[in-house]
Amino acid sequence: MQELQGKTTYGTMVIKCKAAVAWEPNKPLVIEEIEVAPPQANEIRIKMVATGVCHTDLYHLFEGMHEGGFPVVLGHEGAGIVESVGPGVTEYQTGDTVIPLFLSQCKECRFSNFVFLSRFTCKGKKLLQFVGTSTFSEYTVVNQMAVAKIDPAAPLDKVCLLGCGICTGFGAAVNVAQVEPGSTCAVFGLGAVGLAAVMGCHFAGAKKIIAVDINPEKFEMAKVFGATDFVNPKDRSKPISEVIAEMTNGGVDFSLECVGSVGVMRSALESCVKGWGVSVIVGWTDLCDFAARPIQLIAGRTWKGALFGGFKSRDGVPQMVQSYMDKKVKLDEFITHNMPLAQVNDAIELMKNGKWYIYILYVYIIEDLQTELYKDKH
Amino acid sequence: MQELQGKTTYGTMVIKCKAAVAWEPNKPLVIEEIEVAPPQANEIRIKMVATGVCHTDLYHLFEGMHEGGFPVVLGHEGAGIVESVGPGVTEYQTGDTVIPLFLSQCKECRFSNFVFLSRFTCKGKKLLQFVGTSTFSEYTVVNQMAVAKIDPAAPLDKVCLLGCGICTGFGAAVNVAQVEPGSTCAVFGLGAVGLAAVMGCHFAGAKKIIAVDINPEKFEMAKVFGATDFVNPKDRSKPISEVIAEMTNGGVDFSLECVGSVGVMRSALESCVKGWGVSVIVGWTDLCDFAARPIQLIAGRTWKGALFGGFKSRDGVPQMVQSYMDKKVKLDEFITHNMPLAQVNDAIELMKNGKWYIYILYVYIIEDLQTELYKDKH
Repeated sequence: MQELQGKTTYGTMVIKCKAAVAWEPNKPLVIEEIEVAPPQANEIRIKMVATGVCHTDLYHLFEGMHEGGFPVVLGHEGAGIVESVGPGVTEYQTGDTVIPLFLSQCKECRFSNFVFLSRFTCKGKKLLQFVGTSTFSEYTVVNQMAVAKIDPAAPLDKVCLLGCGICTGFGAAVNVAQVEPGSTCAVFGLGAVGLAAVMGCHFAGAKKIIAVDINPEKFEMAKVFGATDFVNPKDRSKPISEVIAEMTNGGVDFSLECVGSVGVMRSALESCVKGWGVSVIVGWTDLCDFAARPIQLIAGRTWKGALFGGFKSRDGVPQMVQSYMDKKVKLDEFITHNMPLAQVNDAIELMKNGKWYIYILYVYIIEDLQTELYKDKH
Repeated sequence: MQELQGKTTYGTMVIKCKAAVAWEPNKPLVIEEIEVAPPQANEIRIKMVATGVCHTDLYHLFEGMHEGGFPVVLGHEGAGIVESVGPGVTEYQTGDTVIPLFLSQCKECRFSNFVFLSRFTCKGKKLLQFVGTSTFSEYTVVNQMAVAKIDPAAPLDKVCLLGCGICTGFGAAVNVAQVEPGSTCAVFGLGAVGLAAVMGCHFAGAKKIIAVDINPEKFEMAKVFGATDFVNPKDRSKPISEVIAEMTNGGVDFSLECVGSVGVMRSALESCVKGWGVSVIVGWTDLCDFAARPIQLIAGRTWKGALFGGFKSRDGVPQMVQSYMDKKVKLDEFITHNMPLAQVNDAIELMKNGKWYIYILYVYIIEDLQTELYKDKH
């Protein structure tokens, strides 16, 4: 592995490695030997060390996509080491510790900055790349605009979570809502994103953080991240916006919807105080419209949304890694399970069956990296 | 009229005067002799000099209210002179030039700051006050929280417009959207509020201001207020958001909906650029929900709304009067008709019949004030 350390290596060889392939919707992934072509111009080939499983992976597999989205290599919450680079790459070199980014950063911050490419083949077929990352593979190739270089001392089986959900929730509070010290907040939905939003409200100095979920088992964990008050809508007969108005003398300053339900989005908006309340849509759905009466905004509220917590990804992720290293941001507490790649379907089942709202981290450690590179650093 | 000038007079007498009374919905107003009781604690009795007619008056008369909202004295865009004050009023005195405010200003800026009271009676019946102002009367009594003291040199038959529509549109651009120098803007609907929004965008330094209306006759007036580009949706086959995206390389920085149509609200949001676009709902309707797909916000857009253009009314209106006196804000150009109080129904018909989207100012001048007080000042 000499070539992985401290100098730029231009990739020229096809790598054969293992990956979890989603051949078709609604079927288990299959661990296959795949070929990963060398990085082309402005591309980077990364040896993955760890990855989380996020609901967005499952959404693609079970709900989101027609057959045109397959076969595909899923996964987008990963961390790894640069193996080689393509022509034109000057900011990254072999051995750099990196997190691939589903949202690349350019000067305009537009959706068009999703960069899709695929250097994967298996059994003679092209495999699609998933949201520019495809971390359920021992090696993946990404565009250099979609890579954050991070502190090489960071534990990759923790900071991989910063590739999606934690930044999404935390940033929604800190960057998008711009929660203020002494303010009141409500977070709807206590999955990983919601818990990260609670953590963001706490980080920003909110004095009251109301955690709302229909599963009261999550309240204890929400407390760990800074929640001060807890509401289970199932225990209440009146609309939750009225409950929150009573708890806060008219409504919270900031609310964050982390469920992906248009009904909850409306409730979160209506839970904000008139005049200056800000509600942020964090949860995802493209099945329905969200809606409200115009007076809800005309009364002086603001409705926002954000992808990836409003972070500029290449700048933001290394900063979040640093915050974790400085113990200002928690990551370990989000992790419920560690599994090898071979158990990827078990991880998916855990999330799918009855645990939908409980975040389950799935981490796989590539053995040779674990011993030769990754373990050396710790 | 000696007592009207320069000293505090506590009102003790009932005044008999003329007012336009709306006895029931969907019927012409009736000019009646009414009684206006003296101001009570913290109240001010104002001799009205001029008033505009705003769509909100018509909305109450024709669409908005059940019979419980009648009989009522409509009107809320007025300007006048303080006739007398009640106990506890220290900031205003007889002879002050004022604009009554439908939205009072307190420290919390909430809707509850609508202050309703009524000191009107007619033929033994109590007449309701309209949105705290009731300017279609020679005299009206308002709470001191709902009065802006303005430059006594200001022409009241012009600055009365600052009591509602002009501040609403102008402030939506300047205070709520916070239009930036060099930015691109789109204003949907070119009634008085929309034209004022165009003026606000221009005032804030926008470089491109796209005026959108299905009546192209309004484009010339929009140009007077600063519009640079004009779109008639009837001339276009594709969605207006796509038209605007093509004109602006992806969408405007700021859009303002000044129609009150939930379909236009959606279009205005979708016309904003991803990443940072801000759309403001200015138009009013409470008949339907506004709606959009969550991705429209998650892509980084912000949806806002405001009442009275986000102005703190008692602070903002005198500043707007000053801006008019300094020729930074136009008012004269909004005025299409001047009429006496006796023609109030003609003014309403003009607005109602086919002229719904064209602002018509209705001004009545009370004769004795005109000669003794108001004309003296000019």
